[in-house]
Amino acid sequence: MAIYVTGHSNPDTDSVTAAIAYAELLKAGGEEAIPTMQGEMNPETITVLDRFGFSPLEIMTDATGKTIALVDHSDLNQAPDNLSADSVVAIVDHHKIGDVTTNNPIFCCTKPVGCTGTILKQMYDAQGVAVDPKVAGLMLAAILSDTVNFKSPTCTDEDKKAVAELKEIAGVTDTEELFMDMLKAKSTVEGFSANDLLNRDYKDFDMNGNKVGCGQLELATLDQVADIRDDLYNAMKEQKAAGGHHTILLMLTDVMKEGTQLVVLSDDDSVVEGAFDSKLDGNSMWIPGMMSRKKQTVPNMQKAFGC
Amino acid sequence: MAIYVTGHSNPDTDSVTAAIAYAELLKAGGEEAIPTMQGEMNPETITVLDRFGFSPLEIMTDATGKTIALVDHSDLNQAPDNLSADSVVAIVDHHKIGDVTTNNPIFCCTKPVGCTGTILKQMYDAQGVAVDPKVAGLMLAAILSDTVNFKSPTCTDEDKKAVAELKEIAGVTDTEELFMDMLKAKSTVEGFSANDLLNRDYKDFDMNGNKVGCGQLELATLDQVADIRDDLYNAMKEQKAAGGHHTILLMLTDVMKEGTQLVVLSDDDSVVEGAFDSKLDGNSMWIPGMMSRKKQTVPNMQKAFGC
Repeated sequence: MAIYVTGHSNPDTDSVTAAIAYAELLKAGGEEAIPTMQGEMNPETITVLDRFGFSPLEIMTDATGKTIALVDHSDLNQAPDNLSADSVVAIVDHHKIGDVTTNNPIFCCTKPVGCTGTILKQMYDAQGVAVDPKVAGLMLAAILSDTVNFKSPTCTDEDKKAVAELKEIAGVTDTEELFMDMLKAKSTVEGFSANDLLNRDYKDFDMNGNKVGCGQLELATLDQVADIRDDLYNAMKEQKAAGGHHTILLMLTDVMKEGTQLVVLSDDDSVVEGAFDSKLDGNSMWIPGMMSRKKQTVPNMQKAFGC
Repeated sequence: MAIYVTGHSNPDTDSVTAAIAYAELLKAGGEEAIPTMQGEMNPETITVLDRFGFSPLEIMTDATGKTIALVDHSDLNQAPDNLSADSVVAIVDHHKIGDVTTNNPIFCCTKPVGCTGTILKQMYDAQGVAVDPKVAGLMLAAILSDTVNFKSPTCTDEDKKAVAELKEIAGVTDTEELFMDMLKAKSTVEGFSANDLLNRDYKDFDMNGNKVGCGQLELATLDQVADIRDDLYNAMKEQKAAGGHHTILLMLTDVMKEGTQLVVLSDDDSVVEGAFDSKLDGNSMWIPGMMSRKKQTVPNMQKAFGC
C-alpha cells in the first residue's frame, strides 16, 4: 500500500519539499510513496519548485483509509483529517513533540535543528542513498528558508553542514542569491488580501485549553505592509470571531533588521505582554531578535499560559 | 543541569540497561547525565546488572524540577510523576508513539525494532562513540530478553545485527548461556508458594457464562516445577473451589522448547481437549508452539465455549 507523505496544513517550503525528499528516500528503500501537500503552495514554495523543475504536488487532506508519513509536524491539528492511530507509519520533524499517537511502533525521528530538510539529508547519508541534485536543491532552499539564511536562533551547525553538502550536490554556487529570490517571492504582498497574508504562514495551538493562533509574515522591510496594517488587524478580528480564539498574534518579521513587530489581538493583552516582557504600543510591539515562531513566540506564550 | 535518564515504571531489563547506555552516550557528548529507574529491579535485571558489574540505579519517580530523557517508553502513564512538557529533552523508544508531548523541539528516535538497546547501538555508531564493553553486555542482554532470544515476532534483522556487534564488544561468546542465565532468574520458583506461582501471572475470564481462570509460568525447563506439580494442582483445586470456576488452566511454558505443558482442572475435560485438539495425559497435555495466553490459549478456549 502506497505511503502518502505529507507536511503540515497550510504548507510552507519545508513541508512541501520534505514530502518530496522523504518520498524519494522511501522509494529508494523499495516503498511505494506519494508526496502530497495539504493545501495550495505559498509564493516562496511556488518559486522553489519552479526553480528546481518540480510540478505542484497532489493535495491530500483526508487520511481515511490511507497509510501516512508525516513530515515537518507531529500535531493532530496540523495533520490531515481523520488521521487514526493506525494510519501513521513514520514521522520526521524538527518541531516540538505533538499529540499524534500510534497503535504500533513506527519510525520517528525528530531533532532540534532548523529544518526537516537537514534531518532528511542525515537520513539519506545514514542509509547510503545519494540525493538527486534537483531534490538537493529543494532541501537546500528549505533549510535557507527555515533558518532565514542562518539568522534564525533555530539554526544549528547541522543545518549549516547540510547546506554546504546540498549546495554541492545541487550545483548551487550562490546561496545568497537563492535566499533573496525566495525572500522576494515570500514577502510579496501585492495582489494578496489581508486574510491571505494573515494565513500565509499561520498555525493554531492549544495552550492549556486556550486557542491561540499565530501567523508570520517575513518581510524584507516593514514598509512593505505599512499601508495595510489596519486591514491585517481587521482580518485578525474576523479570524478570532470565527475561530473563538483567546489570542491571535501576527508576527511581522523584518528579516534584514532581525526583529518582529508583533501584532496582538487578545482577550487578555497582559498575558502576551508578560510572555515577551514588553508593552503594547497601540496593538503591537517591536521585539528585537524575534525571528522564530517555533523557538521564541510559541514557547514564551506556552509558558505564559502555564503549559 | 543534569539529565535524568529513565525507563518506564515497573522496570524491565531494557528499561534499566537503556537508561545506563543512553546516559553514557549523553556523557560522551559532554552532557551531565544520571541513569535512574522508577522502581525495584526484577530478578532478571538484578542478574544482568550483577553479571556485568553494575550497581542498582538510583530510583527516581518524580520529575518535578528535573530535566528528563525517556527511554523504552513515551506514554505519560509509564513516565515519572509530574512530567511536564518542559522537562523532557529526549526520547529513545521502540514502542508505539505515546502521549508525551513537549513545548520545544527535542531529540526523539523511535523505531519498530525489538529493543531500545538496538536503537542505542545505532546511535552510538552514528555519533562515532565506542560502546564500553560492560555497557555493551547490558545492551546485549536487553536485546536477548526483549526478543526472547530472537524468537519473538518483534525481533528484526537490526536486532540480530546489534547482538552480533555487541557480543564482540562485550566479549560474550555464548549468548545462549547468557539468555538461559536470564531466563533462569526470571523463572525462579524457589521461595514461592504454589499459590504464589499459580497467581504470578493469572487472569479470570467469562466465557459464555462459564468462569475460566488461566495462569502462566514462563520456565527455562519444565524440570523447574517437576517437584511441585502436585502442589500446583492442589492450589488450582483450592482456587477452583473458592472461585466456582468451570475450568482453571495453568500454562507451564517452556521458553526453550517453545511449547506449553497445559495443566487442566475442569468440569468438562472434553471442552479443553477440543479447544486444543489434543488429549489429556493425566491432568495435563503438551501443546507445541503455545507461548501466548492472549494470542493462543484464550482465543481457543473462547471458541470452544462458543463465544
